[in-house]
Amino acid sequence: MKEFTYYAPTEIIFGCGKATAIGEVVRRYGETALLVTDDSKPMAAIAEKVMQLLRKSGISTVHFCGVKPNPTTNIVTEGARMAKNHGAQVVIGLGGGSSMDTAKAIAVEATHEGTAWDYNCHTQGPTEKTLPIIAIGTTAGTGSQVTQCSVITRTADKDKSAIWHRNIFPRVAIVDPELTATMPKSVTAQTGFDAFCHNFEAYLSVNTNPLVEVMALEAIRIINENLPKVLEDGSNMEARSQMAWADTLGGLTNSNAGVTLPHGLGMQVGGHCPQVTHGQALAAFYPAFTRYTYPAAIEKFATVGRILNSELCGLDNVAAAKQCCEEIDKFLQRIGLWIGYSELGVSMEDIREISDCGQVLGDYLNNPRVATIDEMYELLISCYQR
Amino acid sequence: MKEFTYYAPTEIIFGCGKATAIGEVVRRYGETALLVTDDSKPMAAIAEKVMQLLRKSGISTVHFCGVKPNPTTNIVTEGARMAKNHGAQVVIGLGGGSSMDTAKAIAVEATHEGTAWDYNCHTQGPTEKTLPIIAIGTTAGTGSQVTQCSVITRTADKDKSAIWHRNIFPRVAIVDPELTATMPKSVTAQTGFDAFCHNFEAYLSVNTNPLVEVMALEAIRIINENLPKVLEDGSNMEARSQMAWADTLGGLTNSNAGVTLPHGLGMQVGGHCPQVTHGQALAAFYPAFTRYTYPAAIEKFATVGRILNSELCGLDNVAAAKQCCEEIDKFLQRIGLWIGYSELGVSMEDIREISDCGQVLGDYLNNPRVATIDEMYELLISCYQR
Ligand SMILES: NC(=O)c1ccc[n+]([C@@H]2O[C@H](COP(=O)([O-])OP(=O)(O)OC[C@H]3O[C@@H](n4cnc5c(N)ncnc54)[C@H](O)[C@@H]3O)[C@@H](O)[C@H]2O)c1
Ligand SMILES: NC(=O)c1ccc[n+]([C@@H]2O[C@H](COP(=O)([O-])OP(=O)(O)OC[C@H]3O[C@@H](n4cnc5c(N)ncnc54)[C@H](O)[C@@H]3O)[C@@H](O)[C@H]2O)c1
Ligand SMILES: [Fe+2]
Ligand SMILES: [Fe+2]
Repeated sequence: MKEFTYYAPTEIIFGCGKATAIGEVVRRYGETALLVTDDSKPMAAIAEKVMQLLRKSGISTVHFCGVKPNPTTNIVTEGARMAKNHGAQVVIGLGGGSSMDTAKAIAVEATHEGTAWDYNCHTQGPTEKTLPIIAIGTTAGTGSQVTQCSVITRTADKDKSAIWHRNIFPRVAIVDPELTATMPKSVTAQTGFDAFCHNFEAYLSVNTNPLVEVMALEAIRIINENLPKVLEDGSNMEARSQMAWADTLGGLTNSNAGVTLPHGLGMQVGGHCPQVTHGQALAAFYPAFTRYTYPAAIEKFATVGRILNSELCGLDNVAAAKQCCEEIDKFLQRIGLWIGYSELGVSMEDIREISDCGQVLGDYLNNPRVATIDEMYELLISCYQR
Repeated sequence: MKEFTYYAPTEIIFGCGKATAIGEVVRRYGETALLVTDDSKPMAAIAEKVMQLLRKSGISTVHFCGVKPNPTTNIVTEGARMAKNHGAQVVIGLGGGSSMDTAKAIAVEATHEGTAWDYNCHTQGPTEKTLPIIAIGTTAGTGSQVTQCSVITRTADKDKSAIWHRNIFPRVAIVDPELTATMPKSVTAQTGFDAFCHNFEAYLSVNTNPLVEVMALEAIRIINENLPKVLEDGSNMEARSQMAWADTLGGLTNSNAGVTLPHGLGMQVGGHCPQVTHGQALAAFYPAFTRYTYPAAIEKFATVGRILNSELCGLDNVAAAKQCCEEIDKFLQRIGLWIGYSELGVSMEDIREISDCGQVLGDYLNNPRVATIDEMYELLISCYQR
């Protein structure tokens, strides 16, 4: 067996209605808190309930609702100021990846010199002074509730990067599937596909390990079965629960094996074109990515292909691996994410710039087949029209 | 989906030769350490190497080698005294479950009023003052390197109980399969079967959860394939590695879903008859346990049966579940653990006493079918002769 490290210190509290545990959970770490959300209408309703629960538990909380999708350093700075002014001892990220990631960055900036950006993955990272973070996801999703990752975009130059450090693992993740029930169909599909990608890419990653492999395959099985179900009926709580769980598995797999080429490029898409959601950026790229990569990972593509369509059990590995690319295409069509970059408002110039930044983050190195900048450009271009 | 909590904060460093990381790992937590081992010959050789590595890293270490199988409170007190005298900031458990468990109990007793026993599972448990614990297993095994459990026997009355608390999770587990290569065949078989039991019982437990289930089934698959291989050729390092990994999975599953009836009674056997090893106590009981339990967990027994023997895929669940009991018998025969209590030197009186204590620990409540004291007595008696 090859050597590996596995580290996933976040306590996971899973179950419908579990958000009500928030007061007791926060109490373990402090008596004053900052609640971080975006300012959307559904989030305001959820945030109101959480504020009430915190009040009941005697936790003095202020609410920062300035998060935007693809959150920026300016937003983090605003939130960190609020945390400091309030003397927050705990930071609670409530929402999708954008809110949880902002909460993590605030927990860093509120306790360190300079800004959170100064502690990103190109640096030594933040220290143990980082405030304790509690994460409650409302999408399913990014897996951010259990990762050491906070994705932020530098306002000045739209550079999307991440803090990636063990000191920003949330202490506790409350995974309450009920909170995801209000997601509109589009967000359900996009975030659900993101969860698929974390698991698929962590499984393929050259840094994968035996625990990541079993978790990822389980999650892929769950997503294939349940994402179409929740898109059909958003009130199907069993399917929502399964998705929330597969999302959490995706966080565990991503944080221990990393993601690969699509996420490396997808991050750049999000930085350059903030109107494109993370899930859309991935979905547009996948058909090119799978065909580029499968020859370097025949057995793994074959295994996933057979999960997506059990009829592939009759084929040999090479045929099943090739067919896996088709199955992923079909899945994208089924969940309404059969899209090209042109319809997402990404220009040809953007694509040039995006590919030029394609090796800034290390994710592409995890791919079983490592792409050059030129290859990235070709691959992205081939995803322009669907 | 049902609600659950999952918490496994120990960092796992896995790989052949990884024991050499010990100095750098201990350094994260302190500059003075207590190394805890038993005084067997093979352990002395391993301990000598570890002491050298610690010296090289500038960590002032004293070596307590007073551990005995089924460790007692007296032993813990002796070790805790050494830790305090030396001002140890870190406690390193190196060896089988007995040494790792003793290290955990020492980490408690060295920092708390009274003795470690005062913080066992019938109490509030130890506080965060507990010294940081680093675990390095040399059996495969107990999974103790990743659990919040320390099994100790009170010297005075042979009461075997456990500390079970989140503050005794090892900070880091170094899982170096090379260290297990010197295990004699008997220890390999007994500890390997213990690992099987953790996974099987956690899978069956009424407190199981979806992550435990996938991990446990993976571990059962690995043990079924690799335990016979290492018994055939103890130098097969790939099979040893697989067993070390399945052992670690057993720790993760046990610590998150608990174990059931066999462990509850097995602990009492170990307390009353210290000559019986933990693995032997389990092996003797399993044939009765499986037949008692399978009607209450048909689907799960069927699933495990089909892993142990793929021919059971042709049977319906009820037939496969029943046959699973036979498959486990065959496995015990294959690994040389087809034994009864009489040949282990357990008397009929012991069995009376053991069953009378059968509900002292809560494990029996996790079983899909909950046994009365009388049933426990009947079951144990039926395992007297093989
Ligand atoms: N930290 C990580 O490990 C990690 C991993 C992957 C992606 N990310 C990052 O996370 C961000 C994306 O997060 P996301 O996909 O969860 O989206 P998001 O947080 O940006 O939210 C998307 C939209 O959905 C809305 N929404 C969220 N929950 C809702 C609910 N329950 N009901 C109704 N509306 C709801 C939000 O208000 C928002 O308008 C990106 O910046 C991405 O790069 C982080
Ligand atoms: N903490 C937990 O989570 C947990 C779980 C299950 C069992 N336990 C407890 O652990 C104890 C049993 O531990 P164990 O089964 O690992 O046995 P052990 O630690 O008692 O060791 C058994 C024998 O094997 C020898 N040995 C160990 N490693 C060796 C090696 N590499 N080469 C040669 N000899 C070696 C030891 O010196 C000893 O003589 C029991 O007290 C049991 O109740 C704890
Ligand atoms: Fe993602
Ligand atoms: Fe055990």
